[in-house]
Amino acid sequence: MSSFKEGEYVLIVHNDRKFLRKLIPKQSLNVKKEVLKFDEVIGKPEGVRIGSFEVYRPTLEDLILLGFERKTQIIYPKDAFYIAFKLGLNGEKRVLEFGTGSGALCAVFSQIAGEVWSYEAVEEFYKTAKKNLERFGIKGNVKLFNEDFGKAEIPQNYFDAVFVDVREPYPYLEKVHQSLKDGGSVGFLLPTANQVIKLLESINGLFGNIEVLEILQRYYKRVPERFRPEDQMVGHTAYLVFGRKLTSL
Amino acid sequence: MSSFKEGEYVLIVHNDRKFLRKLIPKQSLNVKKEVLKFDEVIGKPEGVRIGSFEVYRPTLEDLILLGFERKTQIIYPKDAFYIAFKLGLNGEKRVLEFGTGSGALCAVFSQIAGEVWSYEAVEEFYKTAKKNLERFGIKGNVKLFNEDFGKAEIPQNYFDAVFVDVREPYPYLEKVHQSLKDGGSVGFLLPTANQVIKLLESINGLFGNIEVLEILQRYYKRVPERFRPEDQMVGHTAYLVFGRKLTSL
Amino acid sequence: MSSFKEGEYVLIVHNDRKFLRKLIPKQSLNVKKEVLKFDEVIGKPEGVRIGSFEVYRPTLEDLILLGFERKTQIIYPKDAFYIAFKLGLNGEKRVLEFGTGSGALCAVFSQIAGEVWSYEAVEEFYKTAKKNLERFGIKGNVKLFNEDFGKAEIPQNYFDAVFVDVREPYPYLEKVHQSLKDGGSVGFLLPTANQVIKLLESINGLFGNIEVLEILQRYYKRVPERFRPEDQMVGHTAYLVFGRKLTSL
Amino acid sequence: MSSFKEGEYVLIVHNDRKFLRKLIPKQSLNVKKEVLKFDEVIGKPEGVRIGSFEVYRPTLEDLILLGFERKTQIIYPKDAFYIAFKLGLNGEKRVLEFGTGSGALCAVFSQIAGEVWSYEAVEEFYKTAKKNLERFGIKGNVKLFNEDFGKAEIPQNYFDAVFVDVREPYPYLEKVHQSLKDGGSVGFLLPTANQVIKLLESINGLFGNIEVLEILQRYYKRVPERFRPEDQMVGHTAYLVFGRKLTSL
Repeated sequence: MSSFKEGEYVLIVHNDRKFLRKLIPKQSLNVKKEVLKFDEVIGKPEGVRIGSFEVYRPTLEDLILLGFERKTQIIYPKDAFYIAFKLGLNGEKRVLEFGTGSGALCAVFSQIAGEVWSYEAVEEFYKTAKKNLERFGIKGNVKLFNEDFGKAEIPQNYFDAVFVDVREPYPYLEKVHQSLKDGGSVGFLLPTANQVIKLLESINGLFGNIEVLEILQRYYKRVPERFRPEDQMVGHTAYLVFGRKLTSL
Repeated sequence: MSSFKEGEYVLIVHNDRKFLRKLIPKQSLNVKKEVLKFDEVIGKPEGVRIGSFEVYRPTLEDLILLGFERKTQIIYPKDAFYIAFKLGLNGEKRVLEFGTGSGALCAVFSQIAGEVWSYEAVEEFYKTAKKNLERFGIKGNVKLFNEDFGKAEIPQNYFDAVFVDVREPYPYLEKVHQSLKDGGSVGFLLPTANQVIKLLESINGLFGNIEVLEILQRYYKRVPERFRPEDQMVGHTAYLVFGRKLTSL
Repeated sequence: MSSFKEGEYVLIVHNDRKFLRKLIPKQSLNVKKEVLKFDEVIGKPEGVRIGSFEVYRPTLEDLILLGFERKTQIIYPKDAFYIAFKLGLNGEKRVLEFGTGSGALCAVFSQIAGEVWSYEAVEEFYKTAKKNLERFGIKGNVKLFNEDFGKAEIPQNYFDAVFVDVREPYPYLEKVHQSLKDGGSVGFLLPTANQVIKLLESINGLFGNIEVLEILQRYYKRVPERFRPEDQMVGHTAYLVFGRKLTSL
Repeated sequence: MSSFKEGEYVLIVHNDRKFLRKLIPKQSLNVKKEVLKFDEVIGKPEGVRIGSFEVYRPTLEDLILLGFERKTQIIYPKDAFYIAFKLGLNGEKRVLEFGTGSGALCAVFSQIAGEVWSYEAVEEFYKTAKKNLERFGIKGNVKLFNEDFGKAEIPQNYFDAVFVDVREPYPYLEKVHQSLKDGGSVGFLLPTANQVIKLLESINGLFGNIEVLEILQRYYKRVPERFRPEDQMVGHTAYLVFGRKLTSL
């Protein structure tokens, strides 16, 4: 990889804290009386250590957690990473998502799928997602639509996978089913047990091989003499529901 | 997608049980006195329901969990999916892995990375991994080496990411560092706390932005009238350690 | 403590396995070709090691897990221990419970509360619980009733705490409220989210300071060179709901 | 129970927040522009609701979490409740504990055991624990010692159970063993994996039936229309190790 350039976003690590910053000449980052001048970073190789600071090119996870503007609850990387593979995505697959939200899942899909379509009915969220993807140069295989999935014209039997992240997914199940290829994968993100219960009541006959699960992530302190889990952890983000399109003969 | 063909592997779901089977004419699957004749499956569309059976094309997760032959402890999909994204992989990235084990992580990497190199010192494991990848037609971007990573000639500053799954990773840290590009990502899978403690003692100076974590997966019963977690869950697979290559000036 | 006597129940530990046995002369325990003759145990002090066997007097947890006959789902010690203290029990407190089930929670209450009343409508369960408590000489502060709590004559404003372990607790809420002293504690054990949702809808106005929680227990392997959690764990037993009696002025 | 009296401590609940306050005439509690005058509480029955406030007599858990002054890391109720029963305590049992810390475990033991001895070497901690127990009138079966357990004169074969909560328990194992009756229970609270590993290396031969575990507590939101776990949870407090005294013949 090439050395850091003026204007690019970098991840700066200072002990237990992380920062995402744009490398603008003459600017700097101050943490606990230590100063990192961006002029000293520009031109240096990735992974450079300057004083107590370490500077890297951000991963997609860093961008989502530190850089994405949020108008809605973000999909956590722990969930997004699992979803992308669980849906069976790879470079030859087409995936459709609604609603786009802040675009985090969209960004993750873009790294693995061949084609990503994402629908968001609320204009404010659509604009935020668009800005997030453009700002960090997320791959060009994403089509964002500021449109209600329920009203949009969607090609039939076209997608290998569909992911649904809206509060009330139940009215869309038929349309999701139609948009999928035979045997295609479907996924849902639902924060509450009530939503999962209602979805399980509605899903039958349309989708099979149903799985319901949660992904939990437990971080550990990194001091080798006192190895132990962190005191606090994220207790819940959402329930995930997965299935496959059933085909009537 | 096209309809099921003779000789392909399919996922068969019968209530709570899953089976991976090759569609060989005249053969069948018997579950609790119900019979699925493969001749009735061949030619049908994906997602077909026949009696109490549902038949799908398997996802990579299905192949790993049900189809991969195992000579070593398998890397669980919950972990493999997280690792692949945490390392920052996408179609433009090159990743190296050792040891290959049964090839599960290798298969996951192949779906997202541009180039996958995988080293396995033990011939028996190498052959098993090779058979697993070939049997299920895993993408051609994987190079398997039956070679000890410690002794192999590895290009320097070549890989965007390296993943290490061996019992004693400590002697290889320098070589891993050299094989990575500046700021490249490294990951380790370690079943015991003792290994993590020893790694954390050894890693300093070579890698920064260290994170240690576990991924836990909690499945739920799918009966809408009695929504609740499954009685049993996987309690532990491994600790995951991630870092980034530090570059001395 | 005195040495082991003929006829008493003992906990026998053999590596990772545990057994509850009655010390009957001439009998023995065979584990993997090793034999523990009970005649060699009688007269020995507690904690004795004979060959690979260790012999102890059982704790209440050992009795519940290994000795209690079960006609119903048992309340796990991890839950029972928490419940007993959460209800604020001690030697001066009176607690009522229904249904008795196999008597496990009853046995735990008996060790800490001054007075325990327990109602069980199903005769078979009542008899099993009675047998369990008598067999292991559980303290005499327990009154077992083979009676439906809903129909029983219960003293009013009498109990410091009430615990409810029945499938449909909603019809009993008024009666539970009446049986409690002002500000008394109430607890519920409910396996499914649907039950908790329905209880939360019904409870309002009668009880305040509501808490809903789960207790999870993660066991670790005890080999110091390979410290790590057990591969499997109990994923779910039940949701616990606690509250306090509200008093209208 | 009798009505609230001047000078007693009460638990005040206001929506999601809890307060422990002493009922001093003319004083009051202000939460979000609502005022609870203590003069209106005195003389009222427990469980009274005044405006959005609910007032109860505190349970031991409330006292520990809201009332205990802390000079050291407190033992969480979820752990303390489990420990007390796991050690097999009841009104006929004698338990010894060191170090006392803030006295939380001591207070829990006092509710169930017949006799509690607690040693604390650090004078400041000893005084805090003493103040905590006296302030809330914890039962008189507790003897607090401002003494180093290692140097104290401890009766031999006297205790049914011993609990150890010090950073370096290893030098005390022999003395703990001597203080216990044959087959007596021992427990340890250790925040880090390193401590558990070292303890497991040291414990052998002295104690058997070893168990290592963690207790996790997951709270849920109490809104029936949106039932789901809380966003954040306590990720780790400590590892617990339990065993039984082995007796050499």
